[in-house]
Amino acid sequence: MASKPSIPKGTRDFSPAEVSKRNYIISIMRHHFEKYGYQPIETPSFENSDTLMGKYGEEGDRLIFKILNSGDYLDKVQPEELQSVNYKKLTGKISEKALRYDLTVPFARYVVQHQSEIEFPFKRYQIQPVWRADRPQKGRFREFYQCDADVVGSKSLWQEVELVQLYDSVFADLRLDGVTIKINNRKVLSGIAEVIGASDKLIDFTVALDKLDKIGADGVKKEMLEKGISESALEKVEPLFNFTGSIGEKLEKLSTLLASSEEGRKGVEELRFICGNVAQLGLQKAILDLDVTLARGLNYYTGAIFEVAAPATVAMGSIGGGGRYDDLTGIFGLKDMSGVGISFGLDRIYLVLEELNLFPETVTTATKVLFLNFGESQAFEVMKAVTELRNKNIKTEMYPDAAKIDKQFKHAERRGIPFVVNKIEGSIFTLKDIRSGEQFRLDLENLIGKLA
Amino acid sequence: MASKPSIPKGTRDFSPAEVSKRNYIISIMRHHFEKYGYQPIETPSFENSDTLMGKYGEEGDRLIFKILNSGDYLDKVQPEELQSVNYKKLTGKISEKALRYDLTVPFARYVVQHQSEIEFPFKRYQIQPVWRADRPQKGRFREFYQCDADVVGSKSLWQEVELVQLYDSVFADLRLDGVTIKINNRKVLSGIAEVIGASDKLIDFTVALDKLDKIGADGVKKEMLEKGISESALEKVEPLFNFTGSIGEKLEKLSTLLASSEEGRKGVEELRFICGNVAQLGLQKAILDLDVTLARGLNYYTGAIFEVAAPATVAMGSIGGGGRYDDLTGIFGLKDMSGVGISFGLDRIYLVLEELNLFPETVTTATKVLFLNFGESQAFEVMKAVTELRNKNIKTEMYPDAAKIDKQFKHAERRGIPFVVNKIEGSIFTLKDIRSGEQFRLDLENLIGKLA
Repeated sequence: MASKPSIPKGTRDFSPAEVSKRNYIISIMRHHFEKYGYQPIETPSFENSDTLMGKYGEEGDRLIFKILNSGDYLDKVQPEELQSVNYKKLTGKISEKALRYDLTVPFARYVVQHQSEIEFPFKRYQIQPVWRADRPQKGRFREFYQCDADVVGSKSLWQEVELVQLYDSVFADLRLDGVTIKINNRKVLSGIAEVIGASDKLIDFTVALDKLDKIGADGVKKEMLEKGISESALEKVEPLFNFTGSIGEKLEKLSTLLASSEEGRKGVEELRFICGNVAQLGLQKAILDLDVTLARGLNYYTGAIFEVAAPATVAMGSIGGGGRYDDLTGIFGLKDMSGVGISFGLDRIYLVLEELNLFPETVTTATKVLFLNFGESQAFEVMKAVTELRNKNIKTEMYPDAAKIDKQFKHAERRGIPFVVNKIEGSIFTLKDIRSGEQFRLDLENLIGKLA
Repeated sequence: MASKPSIPKGTRDFSPAEVSKRNYIISIMRHHFEKYGYQPIETPSFENSDTLMGKYGEEGDRLIFKILNSGDYLDKVQPEELQSVNYKKLTGKISEKALRYDLTVPFARYVVQHQSEIEFPFKRYQIQPVWRADRPQKGRFREFYQCDADVVGSKSLWQEVELVQLYDSVFADLRLDGVTIKINNRKVLSGIAEVIGASDKLIDFTVALDKLDKIGADGVKKEMLEKGISESALEKVEPLFNFTGSIGEKLEKLSTLLASSEEGRKGVEELRFICGNVAQLGLQKAILDLDVTLARGLNYYTGAIFEVAAPATVAMGSIGGGGRYDDLTGIFGLKDMSGVGISFGLDRIYLVLEELNLFPETVTTATKVLFLNFGESQAFEVMKAVTELRNKNIKTEMYPDAAKIDKQFKHAERRGIPFVVNKIEGSIFTLKDIRSGEQFRLDLENLIGKLA
């Protein structure tokens, strides 16, 4: 191979600094997931194709990576099938497995497959990569991590309350100020559709309403009319075009607007319960807001819908989302198993923390001290000290070769190693602080004390 | 889908207890890798096919999982190519990517691709899954984790010394007694082949010698004769059939045996350096032993060869291995980049710890206390307390529904939750220790104190 090697488009190598920062975020998520009683599971990277196909719509099916069967995968394909071949038909014959597309469907499959071992309600979290054959672009990758916490087997709205708290706990621990947790409810959206007599136009309606900030009330109304929503319908939902105020005020407006819709009233009640209890329990840093334009995963969620917006100072889309789905496991034959869950967008959270300079400095300072190598005559003495320091859990290295001292110093600098031991005389070590240039002459005990 | 869903053969779901135990092992490995100055990298799950193909021999190529191109992958395949089709030829046309087969080749690719950003010597560790289309059997999976630590860019034998110490540190921290780190050297094996005048029969020779324990010296000699190794050759290497004693004694025997082979003498010198320094620096728990039958990855390693045997009380193959390879990155065009590394077998280490009951009990005790749910009238009070406990980092849950108290107790028992709060009167909580049956009446402050 002559040319420099590369990786497939849409995939990434992660350098030591990047892995350390990602692990910092992941370890904080893990900590809070477990504090709230969520337990980790892991599922295989690939599933049987029939587990995944047909679960994400036609577009999703197209974006699922399929794995070629091993061995002579054409063995059972008839020559005439190959001649009149259509790639979609052929795929089913030469591929039985596919890379997971998200963590939700594998979770549903897990719950159904292991239902007799699981103690319900089952709170699980899962942090694993997923793969999508999407066209790669800035911030969109073909391999990326999902970080999900879900609970199945209870319809209690306390779960929703707790998930808002969980978002808040994680972002507070990441020292991320100004995060907004937006909440809506599918039943409220259905209620609006019912009230305007256009249940079939719900998506058009919410898509248009979502542009309120950008194109103003008149622009939104124009778009709605174009989509076939009537003038009289628009009059009925007039309050939505000026949907400001506190959550309490917004709930009042919705309550009036949806008085005639039973489902709508139920949605308002659910929002009132969740938002009221969250407010009374208090959040550490995040702001909860009711956003009636929020329609994320509309054909999927049945109750609460969540989306988390990064601080307004950072130009970034949502950094998390989730909601209630009343029939998660029905696709695999287990009925009446309500679930609710949230997801954290690791890549975007990473970019936000990077932009706001919120990664603690200690995250990426790997090795604490480098012992220089003065040649074989002293190397054993050096390794003896190195071994002692490591036994005290100090991250320590010896430069492996007796290279020029200058080169060894540069190595420490480039690696961001803060301390160097550049001389050993008898039992005395000379420790140099690379940034300040200060030097210390210490015996082993004091060297350990200084670095621990 | 009517039938119960399943996962592809050779893959596994991991339950909360299993993930927790695996993460326990991984976190100990991470800790020691970093203590020794190894830094984490991660590479994509799939690589371009030409990065992987041809790197693992014909058998390896067969066992690599190939990913079908997205979209109409037959678009550029001519009908006549399909008619006279051979699956191996077709694969190259319909698949451009493949799942990684190990971590070593992706690491070599990473080093070459990022050589200008890397500060050498580069010590990296990598803990990620790999995939092989092997026939699944007990203890052999199609998806499994590899945990590798390698350093490239230095020929210093201190690296080998340090890697033996690293093995020892990890296994000591896992409280695993009686691990044997076996060492050999490729140059010693080549020297033996040279001495017996049968360089072409080296593998036959080592395979036979490896059976010494099972079939005795006579059995081994018989097999060697059958493989075409001469009587006179066997006489020369007679000391190998009674290859016992301390490492020092073994090195003496080898030194005599290989006196006429320059490469052999070099191998003995390397072993003497590594074993001598390891002995002087001391190991915490592991035993280092020289095993001249060790021929792991023979056409790959050029110097030291390592293999780790589980404690003799457990019937388990090797739980780790590694060695020195003088030309890791040559396959990608970067010459003269020597590397040495070791690998930990996560699945087998897991089985050994399980069998010896060495997982700390705390690893799998997820939630510490469950607050029972007495109905909506008290639920808010309960959640307030739950929130307080979580803010003190106590893993706490409230049972989400007002189910029968008996059912809620059973939930705690089945989940292995040690404490339950089963009554709240004013500011007093009744805490029950499920195992002992003891009850405590505590205010919030003392409840937190008791559980923290």
